Amino acid sequence: MKVYLAGPEVFLPDPEAAGRAKKEVCARHGFVGVFPLDGSLNLDGVSGPDAATRIFDHNVALMQACDLVIANMTPFRGASADVGTAFEMGYMHALGKPVFAYSNLQDDFSARSMSWLEGEVLEREDGRMADRFAMEIEDFGLADNLMLDGAVIRNGAEVVRGPVGESRRYSELAVFEACVAEAAEILLKKDGDRKTG
Amino acid sequence: MKVYLAGPEVFLPDPEAAGRAKKEVCARHGFVGVFPLDGSLNLDGVSGPDAATRIFDHNVALMQACDLVIANMTPFRGASADVGTAFEMGYMHALGKPVFAYSNLQDDFSARSMSWLEGEVLEREDGRMADRFAMEIEDFGLADNLMLDGAVIRNGAEVVRGPVGESRRYSELAVFEACVAEAAEILLKKDGDRKTG
Repeated sequence: MKVYLAGPEVFLPDPEAAGRAKKEVCARHGFVGVFPLDGSLNLDGVSGPDAATRIFDHNVALMQACDLVIANMTPFRGASADVGTAFEMGYMHALGKPVFAYSNLQDDFSARSMSWLEGEVLEREDGRMADRFAMEIEDFGLADNLMLDGAVIRNGAEVVRGPVGESRRYSELAVFEACVAEAAEILLKKDGDRKTG
Repeated sequence: MKVYLAGPEVFLPDPEAAGRAKKEVCARHGFVGVFPLDGSLNLDGVSGPDAATRIFDHNVALMQACDLVIANMTPFRGASADVGTAFEMGYMHALGKPVFAYSNLQDDFSARSMSWLEGEVLEREDGRMADRFAMEIEDFGLADNLMLDGAVIRNGAEVVRGPVGESRRYSELAVFEACVAEAAEILLKKDGDRKTG
């Protein structure tokens, strides 16, 4: 089974190395990892929005070719995951393909949002905690916004979380590997059952 | 045509009022607006992740019942859109349903990211601008991450942006209305052509 490796690693200085490392983990658990930069992506002579849409088409084609997604939901420049990753989780869920995810931060979304907003948290008249725009701070005990966790939960799994030191936030693969193992347990075991059933 | 009104308005103190206001705009342009809180959502006796997954199922059912999405991509507690909204854009795009979007902030994603990161921007060895984790600051002249803008561009549109005062960031509907008008121009005109063609 081919796994689309969604996540903000594409923004690292050496994204190809990050992709290779994640693929090695996938291989150990019986999956073939597919990184967003895989395949031939020709950006010669294009820039700006034209280059962006070409990358968009490329990623969409890779998602179409994959059987599931394992998303890196580690918060990216804020309390939430990278929005490109969130888009891809929604895309794969709509196709009926399993969505697994992990985060290299342990805290609940609510605690993380409060910490991220620092002194700008207020209690609304309805008793809900909110930011300075009076926008409620979501509090369901999840890793992130309920649409992201919801897709994973409906898949019979949960967002795998672990505490990772800040210097390894976007490179540590231990939590990722636990997530890959969970996906293998759910999907490859199911596949095995079917074959022998 | 039914429009799923994705956006962070669900976090406002009076989300129902926000939904009604957006539906009035939709009606003026020939659309039926559907707000994420519409319909019957029973959360009696559930809380935490169980409540969250029930809301997730509810939103998924509403998206399935809609013909297109108009997403509020106005940045939410950071340089990017709300991740729930991003998930829903990906979900609708995968179903082949048109994705339109707008933002009440005018600046490009790159300029906004730089401003959001304040003194924490560095130039990498490869010449790219990056945050303190050396993660590249995406710079394609778009409103947000290329997966979000890409879905809108592939739909023959673009993310409608406008400058809105901070106090009206999550309530102003002028930019939203311009986006609804764009969707009507593209979809209802096309629909009209088909009927007469």
